[in-house]
Amino acid sequence: MALSYDTITFLSDYGLDDEFAGIVRSVIRSIAPGVAVIDLTHDISPYDVRAGGLALARSAPYLCPGVVLAVVDPGVGSERRAIAVEVGEGASVLVGPDNGLLAPAVAMCGGASRAIELNNPDFQLEAVGSTFAGRDVFAPAAAHLCNGVELTELGDLVDPVLLRPGLLPARRLEGDAVVSEVLWVDRYGNAQLNIDHDDLEVFGDRVKLMFGGDTRTARRVDHFQAIGVGEVGLVVDSYGLIAVVVDQGSAATDLDLHPGTEVRVEPFGSGQDAGVTTRVDLGAKGRGR
Amino acid sequence: MALSYDTITFLSDYGLDDEFAGIVRSVIRSIAPGVAVIDLTHDISPYDVRAGGLALARSAPYLCPGVVLAVVDPGVGSERRAIAVEVGEGASVLVGPDNGLLAPAVAMCGGASRAIELNNPDFQLEAVGSTFAGRDVFAPAAAHLCNGVELTELGDLVDPVLLRPGLLPARRLEGDAVVSEVLWVDRYGNAQLNIDHDDLEVFGDRVKLMFGGDTRTARRVDHFQAIGVGEVGLVVDSYGLIAVVVDQGSAATDLDLHPGTEVRVEPFGSGQDAGVTTRVDLGAKGRGR
Amino acid sequence: MALSYDTITFLSDYGLDDEFAGIVRSVIRSIAPGVAVIDLTHDISPYDVRAGGLALARSAPYLCPGVVLAVVDPGVGSERRAIAVEVGEGASVLVGPDNGLLAPAVAMCGGASRAIELNNPDFQLEAVGSTFAGRDVFAPAAAHLCNGVELTELGDLVDPVLLRPGLLPARRLEGDAVVSEVLWVDRYGNAQLNIDHDDLEVFGDRVKLMFGGDTRTARRVDHFQAIGVGEVGLVVDSYGLIAVVVDQGSAATDLDLHPGTEVRVEPFGSGQDAGVTTRVDLGAKGRGR
Repeated sequence: MALSYDTITFLSDYGLDDEFAGIVRSVIRSIAPGVAVIDLTHDISPYDVRAGGLALARSAPYLCPGVVLAVVDPGVGSERRAIAVEVGEGASVLVGPDNGLLAPAVAMCGGASRAIELNNPDFQLEAVGSTFAGRDVFAPAAAHLCNGVELTELGDLVDPVLLRPGLLPARRLEGDAVVSEVLWVDRYGNAQLNIDHDDLEVFGDRVKLMFGGDTRTARRVDHFQAIGVGEVGLVVDSYGLIAVVVDQGSAATDLDLHPGTEVRVEPFGSGQDAGVTTRVDLGAKGRGR
Repeated sequence: MALSYDTITFLSDYGLDDEFAGIVRSVIRSIAPGVAVIDLTHDISPYDVRAGGLALARSAPYLCPGVVLAVVDPGVGSERRAIAVEVGEGASVLVGPDNGLLAPAVAMCGGASRAIELNNPDFQLEAVGSTFAGRDVFAPAAAHLCNGVELTELGDLVDPVLLRPGLLPARRLEGDAVVSEVLWVDRYGNAQLNIDHDDLEVFGDRVKLMFGGDTRTARRVDHFQAIGVGEVGLVVDSYGLIAVVVDQGSAATDLDLHPGTEVRVEPFGSGQDAGVTTRVDLGAKGRGR
Repeated sequence: MALSYDTITFLSDYGLDDEFAGIVRSVIRSIAPGVAVIDLTHDISPYDVRAGGLALARSAPYLCPGVVLAVVDPGVGSERRAIAVEVGEGASVLVGPDNGLLAPAVAMCGGASRAIELNNPDFQLEAVGSTFAGRDVFAPAAAHLCNGVELTELGDLVDPVLLRPGLLPARRLEGDAVVSEVLWVDRYGNAQLNIDHDDLEVFGDRVKLMFGGDTRTARRVDHFQAIGVGEVGLVVDSYGLIAVVVDQGSAATDLDLHPGTEVRVEPFGSGQDAGVTTRVDLGAKGRGR
């Protein structure tokens, strides 16, 4: 049987402390031995569907074609559907729960061409309990797709319009200001905003950031080392979005930013602002800034 | 030379902060380039032989045939033996220290057909110090087995009966009650008990749980979302054992359960119990329960 | 196109919480599908070039030939060069930032035969922002080298003498004493010193350790279990260096040792020392020991 796909990209909230991700990989290898599995990350916070969906969407442009296996599944064992969604006219198939996790990546790939519910037990492992769908339902589906099993053999067609959408916040404009929120804080403490890099084209080099009752001055810079010590910077991050950063420190920790924090960006330059230099006082949230 | 095995499943307590697991994989690839290595987990707590043995045993039914390389080895460099244990008449070989780590998985696989002590230095790396047997002894053994080297070339035969047993606690019956202990707390805080799913068949939908001086009412449910907010549930987990769970929270944290905690399960339904609904008070351990 | 290399060994400070390492692997697979990627570790502390360089150097003797991809890159996007360094007359190529990260491993491999700056955009991904060189510059370079692209096609030759050196501390002798520092604390809390195993040949079985104002007696042992409970031991670790250890505990925690802590080793045996047995008081740093 010819391989239809030779790569499975695998994201989950399983963590790496337990053997969950390893068992999924072992099940895949038992069914489809020649397939390469690329772990995207398994450290999505438990049950954080939004964070998993965002990580998938950020990655989508860089994934090699094949099957994407994504499991963040608080509703496992309940009525939520297990699905496979074909994109790019078959270039890739995303496999996971129908809870909005796959939706942002599907949208990044131009939308679904077909979708099915994974309800054919012939392509599933017999489950003892009902709580490990990654092992019993999703991994076998991904592996069988790699082996050339037709999508529609795995279950019944579902109208892609009826799949649960992802709920991603959009930035909004209020007069001169852009009102955004923190999408993601990465390992280095950089806080990604839902602001496209060209949304700030009309702003000058300096902008005002307002969040959590604070106002800070931030400077738009090309790279981390262009930020002065203690200064707040805005960079175009590696995904083309605006991120709040400080040099060799954690913007998230220093400024108390978290996923979901609202950040208002305003142009800088009115009389009262001129010449103000705002520095981060590590660990202290002073007044008057 | 034909491959005898094409897959090594690898578990350890090396963690991922250091390069230990990576070096082991590199040594394997240098000796047996075509072999796939599947990381089961490397985050077994340091020196926790029992936890490593349980993780291997849970995984055993889902591992693809081949070599299993397992290293949780507090006695490294001392008199403890390094061993390879063949199961399933050669379907798989488990490689690791003779300290009980492999025993539960060997038992799950029907027992050892042969065992050897890894004492042939021709199939080991020359060690500078005596503390990294994973790199110098176990990885080379696993890789050479994949390359078709006969088990008995790696060292002297050992009577499998003389291997160190695993010490796994068994649940016991006391009248109507089942006295168990927590085997494992997973990433989600679910607490697995050493109670088989059919041990509770005679119990009703509700049972009493007694542990650490507390008594709680728990409800047997099919999946997480069937548990009410704040309610304690018992599910058949994905390994066929009973687990104490709460919905989208950590049973282990809420109820202060740890590996080794004794949990007594009693039938519910005597007059004084009827109608009692016990809810979890997060973070508080009240009296009278 | 014939493969020049079939293995990429990959170390970074990306961590595993985010999808960074996974995206790099996906980019490699898109360009060079047949190549195996071995993760050495991704948990180097953020921006800790010294720790990354030491981990690479420790691993170097055990890595299978091929490409080494190493990214700890606080200066990403600034003027620091991206480089590829050939060692062993082409046996391996190390790819990463020119900030000293690669230097210790290059030295372990006998020095650079050639080096280039990765400045040919034809072999890079088009970057949206300037902050993810692992994805856009280093991974493509590593993958193209595996595919047989000549080193000099990736950029301009650089005199290896002009590459930034690694700054590794050397132990020094002061009379009878060896003055060293802690290079690395591993997962088990063992503290590796920059003392070669034969540097202590002239010392007896017992030595004095002085650090942070404390003086301890330590015993040279062959393996962990030869250390008495609460005793401090010195072992030749698996890299041939001297490590401070305690049995089944963390020497680093018990003795408050960190990377960079100065540790002075003196011979034991003068009259006043004889018969002193020093034990670790867990969690307390008292006097009179």
